Amino acid sequence: MALLTVLTPVLAAVLCLVIGFILMKLPGRVTKPQRGDKGGSNTDSRPWVDQDLQDGTENTPRHDKEEDWVDGSEEEEDLSHVPYSPPRHPADTMLERSQDFYNLMNQRRSVRFISPEPVPRDVIDNVILTAGTGPSGAHTQPWTYVVVSDPDTKHQIRLIVEEEEELNYRQRMGDKWVQDLAKFRTNWIKEYLDVAPYLILIFKQTYGILPQGKKRTHYYNEISVSISCGILLAALQNVGLVTVTSTPLNCGPQLRGLLKRPANEKLLMLLPVGYPASDATVPDLKRKPLGDIVVHM
Amino acid sequence: MALLTVLTPVLAAVLCLVIGFILMKLPGRVTKPQRGDKGGSNTDSRPWVDQDLQDGTENTPRHDKEEDWVDGSEEEEDLSHVPYSPPRHPADTMLERSQDFYNLMNQRRSVRFISPEPVPRDVIDNVILTAGTGPSGAHTQPWTYVVVSDPDTKHQIRLIVEEEEELNYRQRMGDKWVQDLAKFRTNWIKEYLDVAPYLILIFKQTYGILPQGKKRTHYYNEISVSISCGILLAALQNVGLVTVTSTPLNCGPQLRGLLKRPANEKLLMLLPVGYPASDATVPDLKRKPLGDIVVHM
Repeated sequence: MALLTVLTPVLAAVLCLVIGFILMKLPGRVTKPQRGDKGGSNTDSRPWVDQDLQDGTENTPRHDKEEDWVDGSEEEEDLSHVPYSPPRHPADTMLERSQDFYNLMNQRRSVRFISPEPVPRDVIDNVILTAGTGPSGAHTQPWTYVVVSDPDTKHQIRLIVEEEEELNYRQRMGDKWVQDLAKFRTNWIKEYLDVAPYLILIFKQTYGILPQGKKRTHYYNEISVSISCGILLAALQNVGLVTVTSTPLNCGPQLRGLLKRPANEKLLMLLPVGYPASDATVPDLKRKPLGDIVVHM
Repeated sequence: MALLTVLTPVLAAVLCLVIGFILMKLPGRVTKPQRGDKGGSNTDSRPWVDQDLQDGTENTPRHDKEEDWVDGSEEEEDLSHVPYSPPRHPADTMLERSQDFYNLMNQRRSVRFISPEPVPRDVIDNVILTAGTGPSGAHTQPWTYVVVSDPDTKHQIRLIVEEEEELNYRQRMGDKWVQDLAKFRTNWIKEYLDVAPYLILIFKQTYGILPQGKKRTHYYNEISVSISCGILLAALQNVGLVTVTSTPLNCGPQLRGLLKRPANEKLLMLLPVGYPASDATVPDLKRKPLGDIVVHM
């Protein structure tokens, strides 16, 4: 009995330690990179995070096999190789072409004042085709370009984007801003979503569906689609059309529903496209000089 | 018995403290969006994930303020606006230009067989300048292009990339592959890293340093730099140079050290650049037709 009396607290202490050890181990199960889990906890702490943008690439394991991610997939190992000899320019022509292309691209600006004038649809199709020439992880081509010209659909998109945008502003600004919200109102009013002849909504496909119905992860899908978007911006600029690059926050699921896109597609960007309005203005921004962006070694 | 009577409340107190400690630790560890925390746990479960790629955009809160992320920052609200009237083409010219640009870009391929012939540096500089015209979240221009032509540095880069790549392959393939690793050897041998006249290493700046030394988060830095890379690929193709888009896994920190880049810069991509080798081949890939990438509404 005396022994038991002495042992009881020791036993209890050991029990405590064991329980404590188990409970301290528990969070490990939570922090494991489970799909959805992370997005959820992130959203708790930062409500402005776009849930839809979160559940894509960020949770996708980046597979070493895809390091050289173009033409590097297992499937492609079986592909025959063909000679590649693109046209070659003399040095002075190269220099001239590089200068001309720089001058053209350097005139590109993000423009919010878009003309309602119609734009030939064939031009838009060529621009999309050009975007589709971009490289992608394992040549998955994980992009869908939804081109909206229907006025009703454009308006519904505007309502969704503006509603979420207003929520974002209100949530973030809090009471201290409520009095003069009016002067910020322009920030969430997106008239161009009604006005622009085309809205291009760029979806990234986070995974593909194989013929047997099995899912195939699209590695680097967000990087791939962003690169493709860069080529699209170049193609728009090349024909004299303008846009403004935007990433509608928290609108992804609603817009996906409206546009009836499948579950593997997440909205990455929304580009209103058209001619610039005749009275279009842009902020007087400067770009960094070469010396600030390049390092030669 | 008396001892037990005395000890029981003490024991209870200890138990309470232990449980309390556990409970306080639990949510904190799970929901706190700490840098490194997530990357660390990710790396545990998927050793092939690039630590360096993980600690950038994925942990960056996406701020609603930046939704229209070009020309949309607070600073720019103070900027004066200037008229914007780029050259305008008639419809048939637009169509022709869009077709020509598509044809040019559609000839682009990822090429691993690069000629050692020198390339005029001015052409490379114009290509980088062109990449620098891309839009970016709040016009942060969060990119650094490191252009390596020094043979020793190129070789050191090759050693780092090949060593990590071999590790990736070995770790992932495991014993069952060890016997015929030889046939996969080409996968981690990157001769072009020595041969190509230029290696362009694209770094994303995850944050900037304000004049007062304060850090400024670069929202959407990975998307911005990827878009810029798309424009760079277009500029290379425009002058007849080739590259292969690669994202060197786990090499980021080592390469950043070698190239003496600051802590806010993370390696996003590595592009070997040059003329294609005269006997260059590419896998016989096809691109998706327009109907598979576009949806009109």
